[in-house]
Amino acid sequence: MASRTDTEPRDIAGSLAARRELVDRGLDRLLPSAEAWPEALHRAIRHSVFAGGKRLRPILCLAAGEVFGVRDGDILEPACALEMIHTYSLIHDDLPALDDDDLRRGVPTCHVAFGEATAILAGDALLTHGLGTLALYPQRERFAAAKIRVLQTVVTAIGTQGMIGGQAADLDAEEESAPSAELVSRIHENKTGRLIRASLLTGAILAGADEPSLSRVDLYGGKIGLAFQIKDDLLDVESDAATLGKASHKDAAAGKATFPGVWGVERSRALLAENVAAAVEIASQLPGAGGLLPDLARFVGERKS
Amino acid sequence: MASRTDTEPRDIAGSLAARRELVDRGLDRLLPSAEAWPEALHRAIRHSVFAGGKRLRPILCLAAGEVFGVRDGDILEPACALEMIHTYSLIHDDLPALDDDDLRRGVPTCHVAFGEATAILAGDALLTHGLGTLALYPQRERFAAAKIRVLQTVVTAIGTQGMIGGQAADLDAEEESAPSAELVSRIHENKTGRLIRASLLTGAILAGADEPSLSRVDLYGGKIGLAFQIKDDLLDVESDAATLGKASHKDAAAGKATFPGVWGVERSRALLAENVAAAVEIASQLPGAGGLLPDLARFVGERKS
Repeated sequence: MASRTDTEPRDIAGSLAARRELVDRGLDRLLPSAEAWPEALHRAIRHSVFAGGKRLRPILCLAAGEVFGVRDGDILEPACALEMIHTYSLIHDDLPALDDDDLRRGVPTCHVAFGEATAILAGDALLTHGLGTLALYPQRERFAAAKIRVLQTVVTAIGTQGMIGGQAADLDAEEESAPSAELVSRIHENKTGRLIRASLLTGAILAGADEPSLSRVDLYGGKIGLAFQIKDDLLDVESDAATLGKASHKDAAAGKATFPGVWGVERSRALLAENVAAAVEIASQLPGAGGLLPDLARFVGERKS
Repeated sequence: MASRTDTEPRDIAGSLAARRELVDRGLDRLLPSAEAWPEALHRAIRHSVFAGGKRLRPILCLAAGEVFGVRDGDILEPACALEMIHTYSLIHDDLPALDDDDLRRGVPTCHVAFGEATAILAGDALLTHGLGTLALYPQRERFAAAKIRVLQTVVTAIGTQGMIGGQAADLDAEEESAPSAELVSRIHENKTGRLIRASLLTGAILAGADEPSLSRVDLYGGKIGLAFQIKDDLLDVESDAATLGKASHKDAAAGKATFPGVWGVERSRALLAENVAAAVEIASQLPGAGGLLPDLARFVGERKS
């Protein structure tokens, strides 16, 4: 299991809060102001980006970078780009034609607050701006090759054979009476897991990690990605909307492919614990005992929303 | 006016057809097969990409590259990426929440053929794959810095203060009883003009054109972008749906901001001719008398659909 060094903060909640604030300031700086033309579009973008997200993906990117010796400040913009891309996917997934969700992170979803047309464009804009930010930062010339590799990694992860494909398959699965365990895994590996893995890889690639290290980071990402989705499904079953910040018990009602739906709650909990333990183990073998990464794996398994 | 060199093909229609075929083959190679998982999504993407587009943006990219000495084959993939991005914008603009168009290029629009959810995801995928293709090609190391610049140029051109912003402002304008000439120009400069300019710049940047040449190419792009949109508006007024491949007389009915709506048909025709002439003049001063660019400007002004 993870051993912490004396220089690491022992308070994971405090570490996360500090990094969340850093990411929020970065996003505020990188996104056009709500007063800039066209105002409604920029207000819609900021509404969804600043709706109280956990900033898990940028924090994973920063943490992976730290493990390989790059400072938060050097890769803050790429980390923020990953949150833009994540927010784009949420805005589009919430649309009436897709999951039709009214509430997200405790606030009205983008199309409820700004209308469907603006929500579609706001998602498009966050995807565009996110990939653009990955192309632009870090600005120093020596990062050019690493940025190209990051872009390839992220674009593959969020494309039709990654995140977008997972969302498409998720929609198709609603029409099946009993989705198989294999299908559920495949959907979530793509819909959720791929961007989580790409976020970690972004930090590690920019920090110059070698190939075996990148493989190890990717393996860790696979484990926490799966843990994240199992926990998400369990929260939907076990929690209430007030704690969750969005409608609960919704997956079963929509006929969604979920882990508890396929394996039951108890087996899903065991699978969650297994994946968190495996992630902690893998991370602990990275330089500096994986820095924040073991604690982040535990956080993914224990979160309440 | 433009002087043609003896080595240039005098038959613009033939030149365009040859390049259109080249681009179609490139797109076929770059896009996942319709049999690849998830099938419906890939079928939807190919439905819209291969619905008979003019391939104007990739052809402009290739033509601008040729002017500065790069061969078609060297920048075919980035040229195709611009068509993917253009097609994404069409799929999303056609959605019920936006322009609500049933017909495009003579075939059912993506959401009519595949449903709204798949059309949203197909658009997302083409944007993602388009920007990813710009990051990936040309693959040789020496293009790394140019690719970063191309990505910055394209992302800015299609972002909230470019193409997406123009679309948002276009939606807002429908609520105004009489949009001003200034607003109509601003909408179309962003909605249509910016990607056309970025397409030309992509070819010129990858070919290593110097800064004064890039400015000149951009100036040419501004003129043909404006000409393109005026012609589009005139075709909507003057043509029938069979020739146009999409619903005609639709702009006025929807209260759209158009050039004939603001200036009338005669003044719009004069404005079109002025912009084509200016574009031809600017292009003719480029190396090799601008290669195909003067003829492309004339084509934009004379096209029937």
